[in-house]
Amino acid sequence: MANEQALETLSQLLGERLSRSKPDLDQHGRSETHFPPMPPEAVAYPENTAQVAEIMRICAQARCPVIGWGAGTSLEGHGLALRGGVVVDFRDLNKVLSIRSADMDVTVQPGVTREALNEELRATGLMFPVDPGANASIGGMAMTRASGTTAVRYGTMRDNVMGMQVVLADGRVIETGSRARKSSAGYDLTALMVGSEGTLGLVTELTLRLHGIPEATSAGICSFPSMGAAVDTVIETIQMGIPMARIEFVDAASARAFNDYSGSSMNEAPHLMVEFHGSPDGVAEDAVRFGDIVADHGGSEFQWSAREEERRALWAMRHNGYYAILAARKGARALVTDICVPISKLAQAVEETQADIEASGIPGPILGHVGDGNFHAILLVDPEQPADLETAKALSHRMAERAIALGGTCTGEHGVGMGKLAYMRAEHGDGWDVMGAVKRALDPDNILNPGKLVPGN
Amino acid sequence: MANEQALETLSQLLGERLSRSKPDLDQHGRSETHFPPMPPEAVAYPENTAQVAEIMRICAQARCPVIGWGAGTSLEGHGLALRGGVVVDFRDLNKVLSIRSADMDVTVQPGVTREALNEELRATGLMFPVDPGANASIGGMAMTRASGTTAVRYGTMRDNVMGMQVVLADGRVIETGSRARKSSAGYDLTALMVGSEGTLGLVTELTLRLHGIPEATSAGICSFPSMGAAVDTVIETIQMGIPMARIEFVDAASARAFNDYSGSSMNEAPHLMVEFHGSPDGVAEDAVRFGDIVADHGGSEFQWSAREEERRALWAMRHNGYYAILAARKGARALVTDICVPISKLAQAVEETQADIEASGIPGPILGHVGDGNFHAILLVDPEQPADLETAKALSHRMAERAIALGGTCTGEHGVGMGKLAYMRAEHGDGWDVMGAVKRALDPDNILNPGKLVPGN
Repeated sequence: MANEQALETLSQLLGERLSRSKPDLDQHGRSETHFPPMPPEAVAYPENTAQVAEIMRICAQARCPVIGWGAGTSLEGHGLALRGGVVVDFRDLNKVLSIRSADMDVTVQPGVTREALNEELRATGLMFPVDPGANASIGGMAMTRASGTTAVRYGTMRDNVMGMQVVLADGRVIETGSRARKSSAGYDLTALMVGSEGTLGLVTELTLRLHGIPEATSAGICSFPSMGAAVDTVIETIQMGIPMARIEFVDAASARAFNDYSGSSMNEAPHLMVEFHGSPDGVAEDAVRFGDIVADHGGSEFQWSAREEERRALWAMRHNGYYAILAARKGARALVTDICVPISKLAQAVEETQADIEASGIPGPILGHVGDGNFHAILLVDPEQPADLETAKALSHRMAERAIALGGTCTGEHGVGMGKLAYMRAEHGDGWDVMGAVKRALDPDNILNPGKLVPGN
Repeated sequence: MANEQALETLSQLLGERLSRSKPDLDQHGRSETHFPPMPPEAVAYPENTAQVAEIMRICAQARCPVIGWGAGTSLEGHGLALRGGVVVDFRDLNKVLSIRSADMDVTVQPGVTREALNEELRATGLMFPVDPGANASIGGMAMTRASGTTAVRYGTMRDNVMGMQVVLADGRVIETGSRARKSSAGYDLTALMVGSEGTLGLVTELTLRLHGIPEATSAGICSFPSMGAAVDTVIETIQMGIPMARIEFVDAASARAFNDYSGSSMNEAPHLMVEFHGSPDGVAEDAVRFGDIVADHGGSEFQWSAREEERRALWAMRHNGYYAILAARKGARALVTDICVPISKLAQAVEETQADIEASGIPGPILGHVGDGNFHAILLVDPEQPADLETAKALSHRMAERAIALGGTCTGEHGVGMGKLAYMRAEHGDGWDVMGAVKRALDPDNILNPGKLVPGN
């Protein structure tokens, strides 16, 4: 095998930083989802950019596949070694390199997790707000264009990565973007790299926008007689210009799961959970105005608080939502879907999906980032019942098609990986071939994460 | 000439919609700046996407250059026919196709101007806030990644274009993006096209984010003892999370020009002009808090108003700034520079630039979008004195180098065109070659706006 020679050379370069032990290979061959394990032939743990570039040069010569690895929290099999090769684990490239408070930006290595970053930032009064739920690595979040609960206010990784250092397929190292807040100097290579899932290069540094930790925060919850009423409330709130920091939807099935899991006593009805950031007067005003809109749409009294412990309890419930839902079916595994539609189509998309799930016979509570039109069905699959997984996959398939038909996307924040390849043609048409042309231009031998994202790869 | 045959075929296709009249060619061979005229061989006025695709196919076959044309307001010679060929003028593709209020988005043709768009939007309570000053076309604004006074609050074209219909170099038509607010479905082709200056495709439709017209607006002005004090005020305001909708800097020389031109009585000192958008209470609170920060930094009393006529007078003064400055030197033409730096370097960049201009002997008032770190020196050149233009070019050259050395960019919002090609290597290193590789992948025969943006083209 041609890869063997590359691995031999890598081993000389990296010594103990190249592992071929079975536990290491197994750990880097697993995904969080239903894909079968596909371990790599070796795992490299570089400690600087020069080593990453050297790894790339060696692998390029042998045409040995190279796959980046962050915290391993991807839901679409991004890190699986479909064609063998080397996984580059950024575990030891995990430093915060430079915090610049006046510019409200920070340069980090890709292996730092979002929680570790925010811990380091705490004393500065600044935060990195993108929050996909999992304690993902910043590099992985950039590569999947991650977002989460706060995107409605602070944007996604697209909006918060200002620049990157990238090792290209031939080992050259480029710097994309700059520390200026905006630029018109040529193609936006930063935006091209964000969401490229390791198929165009390996990211070795990132410069991120930071935001001030808000002076005050208010948060609350309310229920609605219907999904449509909840969505109309969100639309009107956005149109009124009331700046929501988070606005999360949970359906009746999710509310039931929350009650069972954490002893809460939510109505078994659609809910919105909302947070506002600003000055103390501002967040109080926002909450009151939001409550008025809720009442206009027949919602329950909007119970809100600016007290930290009450807010924490609320969001702990939401953040544990996945586990609460998982517990709703004993021994179940989850297939998590991820569609995003124009907000005017959201009620329709959720209602059609609920009906489809109900008819399928497997449970699938729904929750999502309603301010962006993005939602997830957590399809609960009994591993003992092989038909369940097929049912879940068929539901997921119909959700993706539904999203695209409604003008939306098959993945709002999880990425393509292996799981969404089947919808790229329907979503992008000939645009998918343009992605393929860009891929071939930057990685002609297809060694960077082969089998992911682009056609015929 | 090979182009002749293409022009003949185009003439059969387009009839009177293909012009070869001298006035038309001259009009499309001029730029707003000092570049010598470079007229095309023909000007096409397509009226639909199918015609644009057919023009591309015909020109591709003959390898005849194709150059897009919006309102002709580019400052870097983007539309000049360096290698001859056909200018495609989007004058008649100027319709607003679909306004979706609930989704706060709109689909437009590229030839609609930002003023015409906002006029059509008025009744909906929504607006498209990106404001480069000139009444540019939306297509041209997208292609140069334009921004302007409101970017600090609403972002640039990068942030406000959700998707595009693009005719590729071979005549294929693709749709980039979707109407979902976010997506992780593959490479961000929308972001790749925004700022590509017509070198990767011709844009025939754009879907844009809209924003609510604010319920209330307050605006005001104040002066400072030094540039540093003004910048520190801006930094602190951003860090406090006070959401500025506009924050513009004008230097002492600009203030003097404003006084002379419009009879105002500004101190001849650095000024900030600021605007806040929000609820009536919110914008009043913002103005008061901002005034406190100004006072802390030794600024003059912050005079603000929420009354429309006073605000209009203030921004009319700023919007007429270019003409006021032009009038400061009789018969002068202007060379407008456009650098952007991290805000912590802004005072240094402005002060070094001012000293350089002062030593040069030509006038060059400075104003800019200080919230983004972007500023312009309006270098006043006497057309009768050839040495002046050389002096101005040398100043502009040193500004670009200064910006890059400070971690910034040679162009914050005007684009590369012909004017900033010389700085692309210094700013992007090998990243510029990556841009070249992307260009070759999408336009292998280099027929789309040749001679602009990418290396060796």
